[in-house]
Amino acid sequence: AIHGARKMEDYGRFLALLVSALLVGFVSVIFSLVWVFRYREGLSWDGGLGEFNWHPVLIVTGFVFIQGIAIIVYRLPWTWKCSKLLMKFIHAGLNTIAMILAIVSMVAVFEYHNARNIPNMYSLHSWIGLTAVIFYSLQLFLGFAIFLLPFAPVPLRAALMPIHVYSGLTIFATVIATALMGITEKLIFSLKNPAYSASPPEATFVNCLGLLLVIFGALILWMASRTHWKRPPEQNAKVLRPIGGTPEGTEAESTMADGSNADKSDLRISSEAARKQNLKLDEAGQRSTM
Amino acid sequence: AIHGARKMEDYGRFLALLVSALLVGFVSVIFSLVWVFRYREGLSWDGGLGEFNWHPVLIVTGFVFIQGIAIIVYRLPWTWKCSKLLMKFIHAGLNTIAMILAIVSMVAVFEYHNARNIPNMYSLHSWIGLTAVIFYSLQLFLGFAIFLLPFAPVPLRAALMPIHVYSGLTIFATVIATALMGITEKLIFSLKNPAYSASPPEATFVNCLGLLLVIFGALILWMASRTHWKRPPEQNAKVLRPIGGTPEGTEAESTMADGSNADKSDLRISSEAARKQNLKLDEAGQRSTM
Repeated sequence: AIHGARKMEDYGRFLALLVSALLVGFVSVIFSLVWVFRYREGLSWDGGLGEFNWHPVLIVTGFVFIQGIAIIVYRLPWTWKCSKLLMKFIHAGLNTIAMILAIVSMVAVFEYHNARNIPNMYSLHSWIGLTAVIFYSLQLFLGFAIFLLPFAPVPLRAALMPIHVYSGLTIFATVIATALMGITEKLIFSLKNPAYSASPPEATFVNCLGLLLVIFGALILWMASRTHWKRPPEQNAKVLRPIGGTPEGTEAESTMADGSNADKSDLRISSEAARKQNLKLDEAGQRSTM
Repeated sequence: AIHGARKMEDYGRFLALLVSALLVGFVSVIFSLVWVFRYREGLSWDGGLGEFNWHPVLIVTGFVFIQGIAIIVYRLPWTWKCSKLLMKFIHAGLNTIAMILAIVSMVAVFEYHNARNIPNMYSLHSWIGLTAVIFYSLQLFLGFAIFLLPFAPVPLRAALMPIHVYSGLTIFATVIATALMGITEKLIFSLKNPAYSASPPEATFVNCLGLLLVIFGALILWMASRTHWKRPPEQNAKVLRPIGGTPEGTEAESTMADGSNADKSDLRISSEAARKQNLKLDEAGQRSTM
């Protein structure tokens, strides 16, 4: 009973964090819309400032909020009865939507720059932002080819999973850092008389948007890095198996995340307790641990 | 023999990453010095731009480079024969140096602003930067009180270690994001005729510094989050023990990082293999896992 109560408490804590993240993410999207509609020129697609304004709105909505949800989608306990394959499609689908929105938002800036003869790709924001989009697309393509398509052998999946997780979280953090640079640039360029340094209402409001993005990122990274909130390994995998894979194979794909499974070879497991313990080992530390 | 070869290969990989991180960090410091001496007004302490220039130099040196080294200091294999207590002093000492440099670098900006009647604390950079310094100081104080002083009971240490690790890495990432915002601000404000958008040599050079900081951060986060590169738990702990703590107690402090140790209670360990396995469990996944 104490064990069950602890589990419930832990579940409650997860839910509280999830609701907080959804709320902070949703409020961030609203803030980006209020920014462009109340303080700026609204949205349009005519080469003017209204076209530029799609950039912050789509980045906050797609590249921050939707990407954040895509990262933690395996953590949602009520999805654990769904097949792993379905969850992979949802993970890949949300990331695809985020990528498309990020690309459209970049097109908006390029078109705006070109219409006004402003140079492209001169700022640190643009350098790191474009790099992030390229790595994100590569991550999505490789993730699809290796973890969704049934061709990659289990050892390859196992070896690449920790890199996939690390890359995903690092790209996500880099995207938020790039958004903060973008906010800084835009406030300096667009606030004249009163300037950014005079702290007009727009400056304070958009600074708060920046803070919300940092809080959203911190919540997502906390949820993604708690190993005990992971989707449990499947017993009867109903997933697309790699060719030549066994049912245990699909398991291994998400369990052997570290090099430390090499150390297991010198252990001789002789009892039922040890077998159970071994399962715990896989659960606790080794599945796609960042 | 194969096992040993694998260990050596893994050790070589760690060394390669460490050397890369040290190199990228060192080059970043050099870049910050070249920036202020070759392209800007050098260093001074007179309320002028030379005083402001301490800000980027001290942030890159202390708050990025030294903090990064402090984070991975437990990972260095040749320190594993040193006592854990000594390593804790080194970890805390490096972080203290980084904190002092960060505070001095902020004083330089405030004095520069005040001498020129530029408002303080209006930008997103300043909001997030000050928040990071406050959280960093709090982290250092709490880390000292809980993990270095011998008063905190083992269960408290165990419960707080994953939070300490997560906070440390999140603050580190936030500091780098803030540095990128600072670079953006400074290049926009100081480059006039030719402007930042005309990509003068200084702009390209300092953008490269920004990229180096991102690469340094990514290397440190990779090394810090590989569980198999952790310092092994100590067998005969020669460390300051919490009052009432047992030798196993000091171990537990760094092992029971997750809530998942609650799940261990229903396992009955009956064999030598299981005991060894249990040790592996602690090693693999549960010590201060982010």
